[in-house]
Amino acid sequence: MSLILITNDDGFEARGLEALVEAARDFGEVVVVTSNSPQSGMGHAITMHVPLRVKHYKTENGVKYYRTNGTSVDCVKIGQHVVLRDRKIDLLLSGINHGSNSSVSILYSGTMAAAIEASFEGTPAIGFSLLDYSPTADFSTAIAFAKKIITKTLQEGLPKHICLNVNIPKLSLHEIKGIKITRQTLGYWHEDLEEHTDPYGGKYYWLAGYLNNLETEATDTCEWALQNGYVSVMPVHFDMTSHKTISKLKHWEHDR
Amino acid sequence: MSLILITNDDGFEARGLEALVEAARDFGEVVVVTSNSPQSGMGHAITMHVPLRVKHYKTENGVKYYRTNGTSVDCVKIGQHVVLRDRKIDLLLSGINHGSNSSVSILYSGTMAAAIEASFEGTPAIGFSLLDYSPTADFSTAIAFAKKIITKTLQEGLPKHICLNVNIPKLSLHEIKGIKITRQTLGYWHEDLEEHTDPYGGKYYWLAGYLNNLETEATDTCEWALQNGYVSVMPVHFDMTSHKTISKLKHWEHDR
Repeated sequence: MSLILITNDDGFEARGLEALVEAARDFGEVVVVTSNSPQSGMGHAITMHVPLRVKHYKTENGVKYYRTNGTSVDCVKIGQHVVLRDRKIDLLLSGINHGSNSSVSILYSGTMAAAIEASFEGTPAIGFSLLDYSPTADFSTAIAFAKKIITKTLQEGLPKHICLNVNIPKLSLHEIKGIKITRQTLGYWHEDLEEHTDPYGGKYYWLAGYLNNLETEATDTCEWALQNGYVSVMPVHFDMTSHKTISKLKHWEHDR
Repeated sequence: MSLILITNDDGFEARGLEALVEAARDFGEVVVVTSNSPQSGMGHAITMHVPLRVKHYKTENGVKYYRTNGTSVDCVKIGQHVVLRDRKIDLLLSGINHGSNSSVSILYSGTMAAAIEASFEGTPAIGFSLLDYSPTADFSTAIAFAKKIITKTLQEGLPKHICLNVNIPKLSLHEIKGIKITRQTLGYWHEDLEEHTDPYGGKYYWLAGYLNNLETEATDTCEWALQNGYVSVMPVHFDMTSHKTISKLKHWEHDR
């Protein structure tokens, strides 16, 4: 009987959240702590200048649901330390996100920030994302793979401070070729900052772009797996050190 | 004559921003694009549901200053693609932050998110932070080291897609022992979610904690350097892949 904390970044009304509860329900005690409003693109943001509140709003099929005015990362902190009063969580799940979190999107993603936040304290964590932005997306393939991956994670564990970034292609279950263990694709969002004009003549801009894959030839990346019909499972750490650059800068130490 | 774009996460009125302009001014053409309001703790957040605006608000000593309603990461995107119309930037500088961005704080930090965002597209970038939260902090030591580090970076360059996380202790210049090239300290913010009660009986919480250093014995970390009187220079990548975990999960591929 595992204790599972669930959050997401699309807000408490998202279908992806219900899909994840459905995938997780049979594994133990499930508690949901999520945000009042969508938190997509909020990255690892926390709330420092506004007090946080948390409210129990429903219990359904034995699952307790709470809402906060915070970000996805706040939800993990409140879930762990306020709602669950520091009980040991066996697994933190985040998602299922409506839309991809491959490549550098992991850094913009509230879904993955929640999983990474849990891994700071050593809680095993998984972020799930379906490559379908639609609010009415079909989550059946994602639920099936979420169950498989939750089973494996609970059975085998994860190395301490490691979480998983799981992306699922928009395909039916029989079209999926299987799981690929991947690495993060080198790429960036090419921004076409769309310029518009308001009724008063003021200019404003919307972020709008596409992912520029800088290594289209590689076959071990998350992008390759997703484009070739595989579920991408990427192990994630939070060590931002470029270890191979350390020796290149070492001579800077000699100059006071 | 280098082209330098500057942003920060403490808003356009922060003294740390002026300190960074002072440090950078002699290296070439400096353009500032920053936020209307403080963006501390906003991590790699971007603005997706509100249109972005940008306004030129002053020119001082040849430096053009712009303000936006966006986050620090938005400022980099708007600075690069709207204000500078895709001119090649030689260096993106962020800060000087009022407060430390060592250890996992790098992931919560708007200052470092701006530098990391620039590195996505291959722009050399440095985030500077002074270990003093005071709005009236003394930036003289930080300015002196910022000048040194900007000089070295412009002369030698940085490996592509690498940026620097520079933290400066709250010490006078002659107390500083020198520069240490460091790696990210393993640690997490221990949260004491402070509980308060509003006049109507409702409970609310403030995030309030301290950095729990999980490797106090190590002498090559950012935390060690800072506690021992060194300026910490940590090379930063954005590859969140735990490469050493890939082989441990490889057998998951065989189970459809």
